[in-house]
Amino acid sequence: MIAVSIANGQVEIKRTGIPKRPVRFALIRLIAGGICNTDLELQAGYFGFAGTPGHEFVCEVVQADNKKWIGKRVVGEINLACGKCAWCQQGWGRHCPSRRVLGIVKHPGAFREFLTLPEANLHEVPRHIPTEEAVFVEPLAAACEILDQIQIPKSAVVAVLGDGKLGLLIGQVLRVRGLVVHQYGRHKAKLRVGQRLGIHIQVVHRNLPSAVYDYVVDATGSSGGLQQALRMVRPRGTIVLKSTLHGPVEIDTAPIIVNEVSLVGSRCGRFEPAIELLKSKRIDVASLISDQCPLADAARAFQRAAEPGVLKVLLRAG
Amino acid sequence: MIAVSIANGQVEIKRTGIPKRPVRFALIRLIAGGICNTDLELQAGYFGFAGTPGHEFVCEVVQADNKKWIGKRVVGEINLACGKCAWCQQGWGRHCPSRRVLGIVKHPGAFREFLTLPEANLHEVPRHIPTEEAVFVEPLAAACEILDQIQIPKSAVVAVLGDGKLGLLIGQVLRVRGLVVHQYGRHKAKLRVGQRLGIHIQVVHRNLPSAVYDYVVDATGSSGGLQQALRMVRPRGTIVLKSTLHGPVEIDTAPIIVNEVSLVGSRCGRFEPAIELLKSKRIDVASLISDQCPLADAARAFQRAAEPGVLKVLLRAG
Repeated sequence: MIAVSIANGQVEIKRTGIPKRPVRFALIRLIAGGICNTDLELQAGYFGFAGTPGHEFVCEVVQADNKKWIGKRVVGEINLACGKCAWCQQGWGRHCPSRRVLGIVKHPGAFREFLTLPEANLHEVPRHIPTEEAVFVEPLAAACEILDQIQIPKSAVVAVLGDGKLGLLIGQVLRVRGLVVHQYGRHKAKLRVGQRLGIHIQVVHRNLPSAVYDYVVDATGSSGGLQQALRMVRPRGTIVLKSTLHGPVEIDTAPIIVNEVSLVGSRCGRFEPAIELLKSKRIDVASLISDQCPLADAARAFQRAAEPGVLKVLLRAG
Repeated sequence: MIAVSIANGQVEIKRTGIPKRPVRFALIRLIAGGICNTDLELQAGYFGFAGTPGHEFVCEVVQADNKKWIGKRVVGEINLACGKCAWCQQGWGRHCPSRRVLGIVKHPGAFREFLTLPEANLHEVPRHIPTEEAVFVEPLAAACEILDQIQIPKSAVVAVLGDGKLGLLIGQVLRVRGLVVHQYGRHKAKLRVGQRLGIHIQVVHRNLPSAVYDYVVDATGSSGGLQQALRMVRPRGTIVLKSTLHGPVEIDTAPIIVNEVSLVGSRCGRFEPAIELLKSKRIDVASLISDQCPLADAARAFQRAAEPGVLKVLLRAG
């Protein structure tokens, strides 16, 4: 079989054996994967990563202990938890301290023809969700996570900063949940995806409104995003942090304290609400697909995904 | 009358007229004031401050529109709000965007023989609270603010970082509210105040426990406090920020997001719970008084308050 491999900034295709399936794991065959910004960061050398990336995928189950899975089209949660620690016992496997993470930490990722994942991580993809949409379950779950963490009253206006893939999903999730969303970004073409759902879009100019939002989501992916969010949030407001940055950021913490602002870090989410949202057809993920490439063309696909203005690039197997 | 005056890092005594009382303001006579770290920072030139500092005080009311106040021993909330804006209408005068702040922003402070404050800001000091304890109402209210902002389950263990004046009040408030408190600081003598109330104290050595607390309060007053709190907090935990710092701080924001940590900035609080706590005699503020000086010796008092190991220094008038 072939597998994408990252080392020293290069994306290569390698021939390798089909992985062995441990007990309680399923052997699954890739149908399609999605390139995430994290994958581009892994390529750039963050986390000292080397190996097969990929954590957004749709697969078909080939082998499993529980035969009900065989032949099913599935997506899978990316955190491989120990299942035994206090975190896992509370249902917080996503924070298990000894977790491995598909395609990120100590478990080879999905950009390969065959991979393994614990059966407990699998979710069947409902029939009415096409594969290219189901690839978005993982990032959509990360967007849904915000509303699992904080309650936002229906009367609130939420500002979403950033018009990247995750930012556009977040804006849509908040809008579909009935909130008024103001989305700020640099690219009008990208922002238009949300505009069709009733999101107020704003191409960022120099002067952003100051102290007007009770809720601000920073999905800029840039080190200036938090400082910008701090300017836009009202006293006693909440900022959700969705931009994972590398290395230290300079922040003036005084306004956080003086204005009693809350900052909430937010990462992966449960798959169930994301699958439900895709099933409902109320979220437009198809418009976020900029390109599709065969798995064997992964190097070109990674290059394409890194181009300005490009949103999701899918890798198709088989 | 005499008034303390700060300019160019110097603390001086000036002779000045008794201030005029605006409508709905009371003219009040200082009995005792407390020197706060903020006062030392004002002296050091932060906020470009020049004038009379002082926002922790007990006064006697001399003149007021509402005659019920005359002769009463009072403390007073330090934020002078406009009373008209949306914030004030919601009862959030502490966040009124056009507020003045006693002894800090655009309203002369309490370290003077006579001062003025809106009658709406006054709270009568109950008979059973001695003046030198009532001086602590303002910082104690800031400590109580934490539990006005977040709910901490009784089962939680809270780490309080810092053994300064505010840190010691915070530890006590959390303890008296039934929580298990682990207080970390550099000075065993200071930490002992809380130990008598059942606080577990820990003189800080190099290795602090990692990822063990669901709640961490940073009251270190130092730029390293937040980074330390981020190491000590568990995934999905909450850090309360009580250290107002000046200038930017370098923070690695990645653990906030990866571990889905919440940061809550916290400033001034309501006076009512603080007065109730002092009335209950369950909080030991007397042990926090390191020294008392006449108002006329303010320069020496400020010097004393800045010495290592010194906690609260009171200024007594009349």
